[in-house]
Amino acid sequence: MGEFEFDAATRLAGDGPEFGADLDGTWGGQPGLNGGYMLAVCTRALASVLPFPDPVVVSGFYLRPGSAGPARVTTEVIRAGKTTAFGQAALWRDGKETLRATAAFTDLAQPPARTSGRSFSGGAAPELPPPEECFAFEPGAARGVPIAGHFDYRLTAAPGWLRRQPSGNPRYEFWMRFRDGREPDLMSLPLFVDAAPPAALELGVLSTTVELTVHLRARPAPGWLACRTWTKYVAGGYHEEDFEAWDSAGTLVAQSRQLALVLG
Amino acid sequence: MGEFEFDAATRLAGDGPEFGADLDGTWGGQPGLNGGYMLAVCTRALASVLPFPDPVVVSGFYLRPGSAGPARVTTEVIRAGKTTAFGQAALWRDGKETLRATAAFTDLAQPPARTSGRSFSGGAAPELPPPEECFAFEPGAARGVPIAGHFDYRLTAAPGWLRRQPSGNPRYEFWMRFRDGREPDLMSLPLFVDAAPPAALELGVLSTTVELTVHLRARPAPGWLACRTWTKYVAGGYHEEDFEAWDSAGTLVAQSRQLALVLG
Repeated sequence: MGEFEFDAATRLAGDGPEFGADLDGTWGGQPGLNGGYMLAVCTRALASVLPFPDPVVVSGFYLRPGSAGPARVTTEVIRAGKTTAFGQAALWRDGKETLRATAAFTDLAQPPARTSGRSFSGGAAPELPPPEECFAFEPGAARGVPIAGHFDYRLTAAPGWLRRQPSGNPRYEFWMRFRDGREPDLMSLPLFVDAAPPAALELGVLSTTVELTVHLRARPAPGWLACRTWTKYVAGGYHEEDFEAWDSAGTLVAQSRQLALVLG
Repeated sequence: MGEFEFDAATRLAGDGPEFGADLDGTWGGQPGLNGGYMLAVCTRALASVLPFPDPVVVSGFYLRPGSAGPARVTTEVIRAGKTTAFGQAALWRDGKETLRATAAFTDLAQPPARTSGRSFSGGAAPELPPPEECFAFEPGAARGVPIAGHFDYRLTAAPGWLRRQPSGNPRYEFWMRFRDGREPDLMSLPLFVDAAPPAALELGVLSTTVELTVHLRARPAPGWLACRTWTKYVAGGYHEEDFEAWDSAGTLVAQSRQLALVLG
């Protein structure tokens, strides 16, 4: 049918407020099912029940490790205001709640004229060589992390962790897109921000997400996303991880931060 | 009775799962009641119903402007695991939900021995002159923003917005503490991170919080907090605001980000 992998993996059954989903193990990370994938499933469910099309902020709390198989998504419309609506979704597997997500939606095509002209940028998109001149993972390099097979990542050089020589600098800049040609959109950004190799790998740190907040700043233009991910503070058994994604027009489209629990 | 202002303003009635609160207008910002104050009330309610003492991450969605007066806080224990518990709180005024907050709690005094030794810092506390050598607001400078009266802020120089000359650089570094001598703790950090003048004032931008996420990284030592707040991207009617707070021992104790809607 030509359905893209991401759309098939986040397809929902039902008209709401409760939905069925079939969580696909090929979107697995290490360990468990990828947190961004599960957050994207919840975001899609909320898009079905809220009166505005565009998520502007989504926050998910990871209650248990995720696993593949049939799942349920329950939703609640918290408040539908004139320009912003708030909703909550819960993802259930085997009768156990796995993820609790809350979101605000609006219509980004109708920003308030009076204020949307305000703009400032204290940062910029990563400066990267063209994707075709970058390092790409060999097929199979992501063995054990099936989700990597869905994406094309292009880095300026092979990351240290891949050569078993973590650099000590937990920061990556890279291109990223779906391997099957699906263009990025607001529904897929909660997945993108959690689907690249974690920067903390350059410290030899493995971790699992406790909470992930994604700000969705603009509808992405088609093409590669220029991405930057970094960790500044590892302490007391936790670290944060930040992520920025810029579209092919040079617009910041997503900004996210997660709190991760160090596993080893 | 010698009760500190913050403790009086976040005192809860009842044993849960539902609590009464009396929201105090002196914790008002511009516009409405301060978002961090309301988040602190919800965090305190969650501390009463969850089996661990320390919030590690709290996320709040602001559904309506907050106002002073009698309020209700409803809570839900989402999941209480072996080392982490998750809960949700809703703050109600006049029968209307104003704030929906979700949090993860743990015991920071009992970090997993195997992993808590991992540490990395890619940042540092602000380097500031001693508080007594810094600029302090004159009494009355915060007219119209009553919450400022509860805090002592010390900046290296008077901020541009105060002289009606926004600098164009949305970034502040400063000392901060409660004026009445109450020491900072994990319960008050969700307030601190939202209770300083917003960095976007240096762009002449006024805004209101849509969502605020706070990572609580360590129990603060007594004394001044060294703080840093900044905004990197204003676009499409929204901006993010980041905040870091470091305690007197030089430990990062809070890291937060909010998404704010530009008002003018």
